[in-house]
Amino acid sequence: MGIRTAVAGASGYAGGELLRILDGHAEFEIGALTAGSNAGTELGAHQPHLRSLAGRVLAETTPDVLAGHDVVFLALPHGQSAEIAERLGDDVLVVDCGADFRLADPAAWEKYYGTPHSGTWPYGLPELPGARDALRAARRIAVPGCYPTAVTLALLPAFTAGIAEPGDVVVVAASGTSGAGRALKPHLLGSEVMGSMSPYGVGGVHRHTPEIVQNLSAAAGERVTVSFTPTLAPMSRGILATCTAKARPGLTAGALRDAYAAAYADEPFAGLLPEGRWPATSMTLGANTALVQVALDEDAGRIVAVAAIDNLTKGTAGGAVQSANLALGLPEELGLTTIGVSP
Amino acid sequence: MGIRTAVAGASGYAGGELLRILDGHAEFEIGALTAGSNAGTELGAHQPHLRSLAGRVLAETTPDVLAGHDVVFLALPHGQSAEIAERLGDDVLVVDCGADFRLADPAAWEKYYGTPHSGTWPYGLPELPGARDALRAARRIAVPGCYPTAVTLALLPAFTAGIAEPGDVVVVAASGTSGAGRALKPHLLGSEVMGSMSPYGVGGVHRHTPEIVQNLSAAAGERVTVSFTPTLAPMSRGILATCTAKARPGLTAGALRDAYAAAYADEPFAGLLPEGRWPATSMTLGANTALVQVALDEDAGRIVAVAAIDNLTKGTAGGAVQSANLALGLPEELGLTTIGVSP
Amino acid sequence: MGIRTAVAGASGYAGGELLRILDGHAEFEIGALTAGSNAGTELGAHQPHLRSLAGRVLAETTPDVLAGHDVVFLALPHGQSAEIAERLGDDVLVVDCGADFRLADPAAWEKYYGTPHSGTWPYGLPELPGARDALRAARRIAVPGCYPTAVTLALLPAFTAGIAEPGDVVVVAASGTSGAGRALKPHLLGSEVMGSMSPYGVGGVHRHTPEIVQNLSAAAGERVTVSFTPTLAPMSRGILATCTAKARPGLTAGALRDAYAAAYADEPFAGLLPEGRWPATSMTLGANTALVQVALDEDAGRIVAVAAIDNLTKGTAGGAVQSANLALGLPEELGLTTIGVSP
Amino acid sequence: MGIRTAVAGASGYAGGELLRILDGHAEFEIGALTAGSNAGTELGAHQPHLRSLAGRVLAETTPDVLAGHDVVFLALPHGQSAEIAERLGDDVLVVDCGADFRLADPAAWEKYYGTPHSGTWPYGLPELPGARDALRAARRIAVPGCYPTAVTLALLPAFTAGIAEPGDVVVVAASGTSGAGRALKPHLLGSEVMGSMSPYGVGGVHRHTPEIVQNLSAAAGERVTVSFTPTLAPMSRGILATCTAKARPGLTAGALRDAYAAAYADEPFAGLLPEGRWPATSMTLGANTALVQVALDEDAGRIVAVAAIDNLTKGTAGGAVQSANLALGLPEELGLTTIGVSP
Repeated sequence: MGIRTAVAGASGYAGGELLRILDGHAEFEIGALTAGSNAGTELGAHQPHLRSLAGRVLAETTPDVLAGHDVVFLALPHGQSAEIAERLGDDVLVVDCGADFRLADPAAWEKYYGTPHSGTWPYGLPELPGARDALRAARRIAVPGCYPTAVTLALLPAFTAGIAEPGDVVVVAASGTSGAGRALKPHLLGSEVMGSMSPYGVGGVHRHTPEIVQNLSAAAGERVTVSFTPTLAPMSRGILATCTAKARPGLTAGALRDAYAAAYADEPFAGLLPEGRWPATSMTLGANTALVQVALDEDAGRIVAVAAIDNLTKGTAGGAVQSANLALGLPEELGLTTIGVSP
Repeated sequence: MGIRTAVAGASGYAGGELLRILDGHAEFEIGALTAGSNAGTELGAHQPHLRSLAGRVLAETTPDVLAGHDVVFLALPHGQSAEIAERLGDDVLVVDCGADFRLADPAAWEKYYGTPHSGTWPYGLPELPGARDALRAARRIAVPGCYPTAVTLALLPAFTAGIAEPGDVVVVAASGTSGAGRALKPHLLGSEVMGSMSPYGVGGVHRHTPEIVQNLSAAAGERVTVSFTPTLAPMSRGILATCTAKARPGLTAGALRDAYAAAYADEPFAGLLPEGRWPATSMTLGANTALVQVALDEDAGRIVAVAAIDNLTKGTAGGAVQSANLALGLPEELGLTTIGVSP
Repeated sequence: MGIRTAVAGASGYAGGELLRILDGHAEFEIGALTAGSNAGTELGAHQPHLRSLAGRVLAETTPDVLAGHDVVFLALPHGQSAEIAERLGDDVLVVDCGADFRLADPAAWEKYYGTPHSGTWPYGLPELPGARDALRAARRIAVPGCYPTAVTLALLPAFTAGIAEPGDVVVVAASGTSGAGRALKPHLLGSEVMGSMSPYGVGGVHRHTPEIVQNLSAAAGERVTVSFTPTLAPMSRGILATCTAKARPGLTAGALRDAYAAAYADEPFAGLLPEGRWPATSMTLGANTALVQVALDEDAGRIVAVAAIDNLTKGTAGGAVQSANLALGLPEELGLTTIGVSP
Repeated sequence: MGIRTAVAGASGYAGGELLRILDGHAEFEIGALTAGSNAGTELGAHQPHLRSLAGRVLAETTPDVLAGHDVVFLALPHGQSAEIAERLGDDVLVVDCGADFRLADPAAWEKYYGTPHSGTWPYGLPELPGARDALRAARRIAVPGCYPTAVTLALLPAFTAGIAEPGDVVVVAASGTSGAGRALKPHLLGSEVMGSMSPYGVGGVHRHTPEIVQNLSAAAGERVTVSFTPTLAPMSRGILATCTAKARPGLTAGALRDAYAAAYADEPFAGLLPEGRWPATSMTLGANTALVQVALDEDAGRIVAVAAIDNLTKGTAGGAVQSANLALGLPEELGLTTIGVSP
């Protein structure tokens, strides 16, 4: 008898990736699958690749449907999680892939989302200092955003080691189109995105900005300033985050490398690549890995750290399962792979 | 203590996919990894996504290195398997992903490959009538080519049910570039293939043609004529095979569908999609599935069957593991998934 | 003072390609630009690449707006052209990129489109026997569909030379996503199409089927039977049509090649490639060329002819301008290039 | 009688793009085409899309072959231009698409290229202050690198207007694979690049770094510090350069926009997009345009400017022709388009 698990938002990309992982996970038993406007249709109409679940009919996303499970994964548009979570008892582990409970600062939430703040849940990035222990006792988990996952893992060793200045982080990240979900918008059409790169949310207005600031500031122990520019890349999945921070005076390439090697030596899902190898997003396709590499630009006085993840796996659903494993007392790595489908 | 397994040709695409699957397989223990010109280098230099094996040094592909394993997977250029297999005892299961032992007809081999025929091994397509039983006793397995896998599974139900004429099969198949391996040829450069479709091997000269003819003829019980045109598609993985055969007089759409439904009702890795859904190669990415759909074109008098597979998984390495599972008395599905990494 | 030209449907892909070509054409002067639901907005909001026209405001598509031009290009959903064309005088050249006036057979129209037949206009494929002369006097032109353009040009030499049997043509064609226009449908999202091939309209139900039959039958002088399967390829533009027909008994490879070489020796926009070179769609990107190659499969007894075009250029807007040039007494090649943007 | 023009390096991507543009240019007459290891073969074997020139046989790249032309375009590996240019008289316009004569500082050249400095030629970026006039008299032109073109045009208005601090520019740029030429390297294979983003030359080691520093420093009137990270994107063509510089205290969004609008108001090939529209590389495909947009990130205190170009057109061959037009007294825009082949 497995751990009874529901997925809300099963017809979207995050929901589909959750189900792909849960289907191959030895401990979870997939229960209710819910959707919004797709309720009443078969899962296979939206996720034909989920062969074993294709005939399942999607229920409406209501607390009643989701009740009676041990774990509920929420993959909903932001703003919908609070009401549902309230109605689920504290004995239910609720893992929210949405943004609602990620930010600790209500003012930041309100500035970027324009609605009242719902609260703050334990943050599902086990690689953050202290996070793993917090997640072991958690009944509510806020899964990080995809960009914040990549950027945080790229710069975390630099800030925890105190070798980067907090003043002037610059991040440019490229994301596959699945990061935007299955929204029917002209700029997401294949004809528009194939063979093309474009930026969006330029000037610090992307909603993942305050989450990046929150994570890096926590690591640095002081306020970090971040210029964050996301770009849309012609690929379905993957984030490549190129992150630079000013190096503290006197930092050497060796010390930089040592800091990164030490930070990730024991992490199952964040790894520093060997010298001379740089991450490519394809290395992480379908895998729960963040691959990191770092260099010191001595002329510019900057640390340049690059992280690659699969935005739907380590960036969303895989990260969610990793944290759920911890909260449920299971081995952290259960049901998750570090090997991408490559080439 | 697992089944001790060696992979020859570990630095290529087929070898990499074998290792990706074997790494997640509960029963195999990965032993020697060998290569040709890449011998002496680290696996990670060629397969950086295989994180857990990246530090392994590639040995030379010699019988001595491969001896002492329970299973040896060969992912070598054609013409190299015979000599190695001869030197490995009959107690070793040898699974050849190359072409050397696929064809039963020496004349066909010599016409298409221009070298003497090495022999014929049990053919690793369990979905073929009788093949599953033959594989259960096998110590030598010839893994099918990627195109023949897709084409055979698309048309097999039609020929075994006797509803297709053998006289005039036409197949046009699109393949991702990984089907050509990691060869450094100008036409395989990203700049050339992205945003472009092109044919090759037109006019029946592709080496997979006689293998397709062999499989379909066996199913039909008489010689099948095939016009086969492969095309190169702008994607890394996947084969979409569009296969048409003349319908026997009087065939109805319902009878056609019934034949296909019956043929694949109990197959773990070949499936007929529900009506109205057509396969896309992305549904099978990294999965050991062949997804099939079929229609009757009454005006043209033709059955049109389409199969999608991942050329490296069901089309090569996954198919190899599926057959090896059978030969080793393991559950056929062990270590293999039917759910692609999609979108 | 140029030829005053209007484009109806300027915010779509076909309309955008028309404007790209017209902007570089020495004789046309771009007048009214109209749209349906996008009327009232700036062209640049939809076609930001059309820099020189970006500030133009789109008018509503009405006969009044379109009147007063020497040439009107219609790039509208099918069913809308007849009413507009009626209201434009016979002194206006109307070039319809839609399907309404392509088919000569009302029954075929009604079977595939389900509405009453609007009539038949001179068919804008100058390479067809007799078509060039007919177009020189035309005031109404029906621009061919993109698939029929590619398929017809691939097989035309075989049927006009009488070296192919009419009985059993099989066509499998791959198209870039722009062929589906800018429709907001889930299967056209970048996340779905990148890295994936899929078929659609299988079984002879695609609306371009009767148009292909019409053209090939005209060339053959008797009814040609066609099995046509379109597939969606992960690229924005391009059609690769792989077309096979049974060879007449006794046909040799040399005679086949001669027939093709002769057919296209003097055509500006349809060309047989040198032996050993096969067309790739990227060779035609943005160009008004159809590139063709042919082989004889002696074992299968089939001619295999492959054509590559840019679906928006030779397949739509470039073909439209080519025919308009003829109708206006301009050099056929004016404003059109044969060189694709490659790689 | 046109301007007699030779292209050295005609079998590569830059050479092919030069020929595509020259073929459509009213004033140039294409003379000698030369190559290195491809000498003696037909152009069509390497550039099959150049239909009108496909039968031309490539000569060896020697001064003798190139002599006797009015203009010689060099698209050679770096290090080969000096010797050839020396042998061509001062009456010949030599336009070098390679790096040899771009840098003014011999020390920078030697640090990044490891060979003696060949000298400095007039720099072919007419948009730079004073450059257009210098080009009008030039007999030797050094065409800028593709990344420097994009980055310089993104940040030029900020530095010439004195609204950006010179101290800490950060650039992350994504390039299509054609930027690496037709080199047969494993990481450039389609299987590796499709569906994947990866960085390279991280830490300030890319050879375009000193050229970017040179251009921005000239614009700023003082030494500019640059952290430059190039990334490889899954597309054949295009560069998207995301460039940030610290804003001078008190800079407003309005003043920023005004500076950019003024800088490019009269430029034919560099344009500021309307507010709210961001450049996509596809807008520039095959066009000689740099499309720019800019935002002020007030929290981070940074100007974020983004430029999109086609690396082979405005980034190489189109830029070369633009400068050659100036040097030859032709209209600057002759033979060049601002409209990309989109979508």
